[in-house]
Amino acid sequence: MTPTSISQALPATGRGRPGYSRAQVISEAVNEFNAHGYEATSMGTLAKRLGITKSAIYHHVTSKEEILQEATDLALTSLEEISTEAWEQTGGPKAQLVFLIKGSIAVLCEHKAQVTLLLRLRGNSEAELEAMKRRRELTRAMIDLVVHAQEAGEIRPDLDAGVVGRLIFGTVNSLTDWYEAGGKLTPEEIADTTAELVLSGLKTATPST
Amino acid sequence: MTPTSISQALPATGRGRPGYSRAQVISEAVNEFNAHGYEATSMGTLAKRLGITKSAIYHHVTSKEEILQEATDLALTSLEEISTEAWEQTGGPKAQLVFLIKGSIAVLCEHKAQVTLLLRLRGNSEAELEAMKRRRELTRAMIDLVVHAQEAGEIRPDLDAGVVGRLIFGTVNSLTDWYEAGGKLTPEEIADTTAELVLSGLKTATPST
Repeated sequence: MTPTSISQALPATGRGRPGYSRAQVISEAVNEFNAHGYEATSMGTLAKRLGITKSAIYHHVTSKEEILQEATDLALTSLEEISTEAWEQTGGPKAQLVFLIKGSIAVLCEHKAQVTLLLRLRGNSEAELEAMKRRRELTRAMIDLVVHAQEAGEIRPDLDAGVVGRLIFGTVNSLTDWYEAGGKLTPEEIADTTAELVLSGLKTATPST
Repeated sequence: MTPTSISQALPATGRGRPGYSRAQVISEAVNEFNAHGYEATSMGTLAKRLGITKSAIYHHVTSKEEILQEATDLALTSLEEISTEAWEQTGGPKAQLVFLIKGSIAVLCEHKAQVTLLLRLRGNSEAELEAMKRRRELTRAMIDLVVHAQEAGEIRPDLDAGVVGRLIFGTVNSLTDWYEAGGKLTPEEIADTTAELVLSGLKTATPST
């Protein structure tokens, strides 16, 4: 399901003409960026879509870049929290890895629009470069955890940790492409399947003949 | 490594002012779309970047959409060939799955720019919608192969085939984000690691204590 348009979902609040809150303006802007591209969306386009004037948007935010920054910061902060919590989990590196995979999927399903925006950044502004730097640090933390689990003998040591870490995030991030809230499987079921796939693969429990 | 700018790499061929062939115009356009977004790139922007006039571009292609169509068709045709060949492999469904994973990675590494463009389409034009339809058929063929392998008892039957198929393509497609030609690992080594991860996961050969 696509997010319901705020003009349908929300009554006017009395602030400004159709009454968009700052959070609503940012949320709608992110949907617009994802549908048509960040660079292709101007504050003018956005105002037109919301049915308000540009100055009504500038009442809430100073620039398009501020919207990008706030939305990607929400996604990044949530993912960074999961990354920090993962390292604090007891039960060994493999359990920490599972926590990180499942936690990242939970963040992605909860903040799909913001994570989608984050993953599509191209680095054409300072705000984008800063967000991409934080994203690289998350990947680095994932790779460190893979190395840690390999050294502890909890996962196979023969695969390149850099490639494995990137592939794990690639697997998780692909959900922005196809996860739909209210779909056949819950976020928890998808997280379980993904963790199973990464940890145990598709191999049958007993060798097939 | 980013692709070398054609203005640096290629001598003027004598056709038009700086002498771009049709293939070179399309290739440079795809790089520009990937760097700044398809919708944010106009024929005017493109001409400016190539240092030629708009009419010099129109000498080769009739529209921006024609460029998109030709580039994504190259990626899709290559992936469709691998998908067809996979089903023709002998050795059972698991071997076919491995062929499809490794073959898709080979296509992605060879045509990274075109696959990247394909994966970022948002469906805002007929050409985009048509390419996205062909992409969905590739995902469907992957899911069918997973079902086939599950029914043959060659891979574990307990994971949802739809989720598994999408996660496999997600894993493969993440290479557009981080694969660099001439990097530490060859495309073949990355393909081997990815196939190993999908098939056997990170589980150690002998259970750890």
